[in-house]
Amino acid sequence: MQRTNFGDMACSIARTLDVIGEPWSPLILRDIWVGITRFDQIQSDLGISRKVLTERLNHLVDSGVLERRPYDPRPRHEYTLTEKGTELIDLLMVMATWGDKWQSTNTGPPVLFRHHTCGQISTPTLHCTHCSQPMHATNIDHLPGPGAPTPPVNPPKAQLDA
Amino acid sequence: MQRTNFGDMACSIARTLDVIGEPWSPLILRDIWVGITRFDQIQSDLGISRKVLTERLNHLVDSGVLERRPYDPRPRHEYTLTEKGTELIDLLMVMATWGDKWQSTNTGPPVLFRHHTCGQISTPTLHCTHCSQPMHATNIDHLPGPGAPTPPVNPPKAQLDA
Repeated sequence: MQRTNFGDMACSIARTLDVIGEPWSPLILRDIWVGITRFDQIQSDLGISRKVLTERLNHLVDSGVLERRPYDPRPRHEYTLTEKGTELIDLLMVMATWGDKWQSTNTGPPVLFRHHTCGQISTPTLHCTHCSQPMHATNIDHLPGPGAPTPPVNPPKAQLDA
Repeated sequence: MQRTNFGDMACSIARTLDVIGEPWSPLILRDIWVGITRFDQIQSDLGISRKVLTERLNHLVDSGVLERRPYDPRPRHEYTLTEKGTELIDLLMVMATWGDKWQSTNTGPPVLFRHHTCGQISTPTLHCTHCSQPMHATNIDHLPGPGAPTPPVNPPKAQLDA
């Protein structure tokens, strides 16, 4: 069976999923984000097979999200987030916030974020880059952008029902 | 091979991935978000097999992210986002914004967001719920929360190196 190529879809969500569209990649990024950066550390923390971890790390390096660098002459490698990877952490922060609210156990959030700017334990929320007011699914419209396919991937419902 | 149970991990990122930890689920949510809500419409739009689509829709309904309702006596069903599902769209908005920046082709963003509050084409960015200032990976600390495991899932690097 041919693998669906999400990276070729005219959709930035699909193209992002082409980089992290399975559960291990975001968890690998989470580990590296919090300082678990060496292959053996990540493997031990996640309980992931060496084969799968190698594949996912290679993909994340090839995608420009991680950088690999030797830390030992043998050589062994550790991984760090690139600028592209660091900006991807926004996604994990939103994921953690949603999971804390909707998928939590009775014990509460496993991890808290302390915001340097105000020093408070806090959570992120989405704001409009233009007007700084809250921006969510409930207060936006979608418009076709310059990269929209012809015909559009997401035709209006009326067209589909025709 | 036993499937890893991401929903049991003491990590809200892993628990969120238990709901949408593969590429199709976010794309199904995307379609429903933009008004492609019926089984046959989603199947046609995504080019996904009926078997996989049925499995993913069932999982999203069981997870409380979608509601199923009949729209025809045969019966046929359409799907709508619950409150839990609507809040998950934040994740897709961040995914689209990151993908627009880092995974785009030369043609530009496939979809634009127009923010109702200011009327502008804009993108979301993360702000602190407490002080409203930007909040990203680069300006937060992690602290163990009340739901942190003992020993912690993410011990400090110094411990791992010991």
